[in-house]
Amino acid sequence: MITEFNVIEKFFKKNTDVPLGIGDDAALIEKDQDHFWAIAQDTLNVNTHFLKNTNPINLGWKSLAVNVSDMFAMGAKPKYAFLSIALDKVENDWLKQFSQGLFKCAKEYGVQLIGGDTTRGKLSISIVLMGEVHKKFVLKRSHAKINDDIWVTNALGLAAFGLKNLKTQINCPKSLKSKSINALEKPKPKNITKNNFSRLFHAGIDISDGFIADLGHVLEQSKVGAIIQLDNLPINPWIKTNKYLSCALYGGDDYELILTADKKHRNQILTQSKKLNFQIYNVGEITKSQDLHIHNNKGCPIKLKTRFFRHFK
Amino acid sequence: MITEFNVIEKFFKKNTDVPLGIGDDAALIEKDQDHFWAIAQDTLNVNTHFLKNTNPINLGWKSLAVNVSDMFAMGAKPKYAFLSIALDKVENDWLKQFSQGLFKCAKEYGVQLIGGDTTRGKLSISIVLMGEVHKKFVLKRSHAKINDDIWVTNALGLAAFGLKNLKTQINCPKSLKSKSINALEKPKPKNITKNNFSRLFHAGIDISDGFIADLGHVLEQSKVGAIIQLDNLPINPWIKTNKYLSCALYGGDDYELILTADKKHRNQILTQSKKLNFQIYNVGEITKSQDLHIHNNKGCPIKLKTRFFRHFK
Repeated sequence: MITEFNVIEKFFKKNTDVPLGIGDDAALIEKDQDHFWAIAQDTLNVNTHFLKNTNPINLGWKSLAVNVSDMFAMGAKPKYAFLSIALDKVENDWLKQFSQGLFKCAKEYGVQLIGGDTTRGKLSISIVLMGEVHKKFVLKRSHAKINDDIWVTNALGLAAFGLKNLKTQINCPKSLKSKSINALEKPKPKNITKNNFSRLFHAGIDISDGFIADLGHVLEQSKVGAIIQLDNLPINPWIKTNKYLSCALYGGDDYELILTADKKHRNQILTQSKKLNFQIYNVGEITKSQDLHIHNNKGCPIKLKTRFFRHFK
Repeated sequence: MITEFNVIEKFFKKNTDVPLGIGDDAALIEKDQDHFWAIAQDTLNVNTHFLKNTNPINLGWKSLAVNVSDMFAMGAKPKYAFLSIALDKVENDWLKQFSQGLFKCAKEYGVQLIGGDTTRGKLSISIVLMGEVHKKFVLKRSHAKINDDIWVTNALGLAAFGLKNLKTQINCPKSLKSKSINALEKPKPKNITKNNFSRLFHAGIDISDGFIADLGHVLEQSKVGAIIQLDNLPINPWIKTNKYLSCALYGGDDYELILTADKKHRNQILTQSKKLNFQIYNVGEITKSQDLHIHNNKGCPIKLKTRFFRHFK
């Protein structure tokens, strides 16, 4: 079976002269003596990544936010964006609102839009984002070390639960419903570059394909395994106790971060995160054995579905 | 009426701190003391920019070539590419051929693919390309000077004529038919960076929207006009004499270059172009009066259709 990951690996990955090419949240090229440019590209297509009637303000926000999230996953500060948008037709109001949302996100995260391209086609938004990262503090997928703590930013599965809410009637608290739809439509990338917080970590990835799938990418590229404590995962209690746990484990679109760090930084991470008003949870440990286990509160491993998210089935 | 150009200008152009933002063939950002990165983004959508049954090898070539052409139009040497491809489904053979064509073009022009993203959606290919250009020798659309010669690389209108050939039965020479379809499906960007040839020119643009439309962008941004000698335009004689002149003037997709240069460089341009085996034609002159005239062989202006190419009608 060919997954999104396979397509790129199989048909488009060749040797290059850059410090990091295809296979992480962003590629890296030389910027100056101390810094790399991290460059990420993410595309959102109507009906695949968002519903046609999505509020254009939120869609504008999200189109950029998913790329901002890639930057933070590398420990990079986002800077310059390029937008390619395909449209069926030009609707002034829609474009005005989309642009409003996009620039709101740009302002929030210090991004400047410096290139643009409009084409006629089925609604699709492709953004390339460049950010700056210190060479010593890049968070690569391949950098997880054995015995590292595994950290996750709050909260898992909200976006997937939001999508379920949009598609079917779920009898959940009203506030959770709106919170989850908001998480889906207006993700808030976690800026771990503030106060050099990112320098405490080894590896990083953002959760776009689902917690298990994305953790899987880190484990594979770092050639390690992990044990996760289910009870430590930041999951909304209602979602957890009402059989929507799969949203948290396999649901995409969270744009939270999975990070790994040396245990010696544990206290510093907790102290600094409080100062930054940053919710982050110690959820498990990197292991030498290249397996992924999730333990319930009795210390027993739960059975996992496939580790990989598939765009193509 | 809103054109592709308007959409970007109206909704997405804001002040930035970069040397050149939205509005040229590429944006410019600082690279080092002497060089800029030029960064271009071009998207090809099925049914808008190519027919569904287009040979995937040619499509792979063209997807990158249109961006390479943007680099040359800025006087930049292409270097790093990022590919985002949306696919209905994964077809191994198709992808293999597409990749083959893309990497053939990459090899030809010294490009490395360093980032990639696959999504599910209607077939669409969006590529971002970064290239290097010396700060003193950037070919901006706004750099045309009054009395400059206007130069055009060979040949105009072939691609548009190729599209006509694919859509209807035209009774033209067989060799012209295949040549024109080849020009449409496998454009050959004009590498004017060889031997620093590009340093002889002031302004540059590549012809994607049509000769008149793209010359129009240069004139507008340079706040000048032009007189073009119709007989000097490099147009295939059969096309010119069989009422397909509009292909040459208004047809898109040529990916030839329009350049302007000081008259004092005229001989040097002709000598160097011969050495480089580069076909380039002196077709007119930049004027102070902000109009565009095309003169026939009797010195009379011919009547022009609208100057602008419109993606949205």
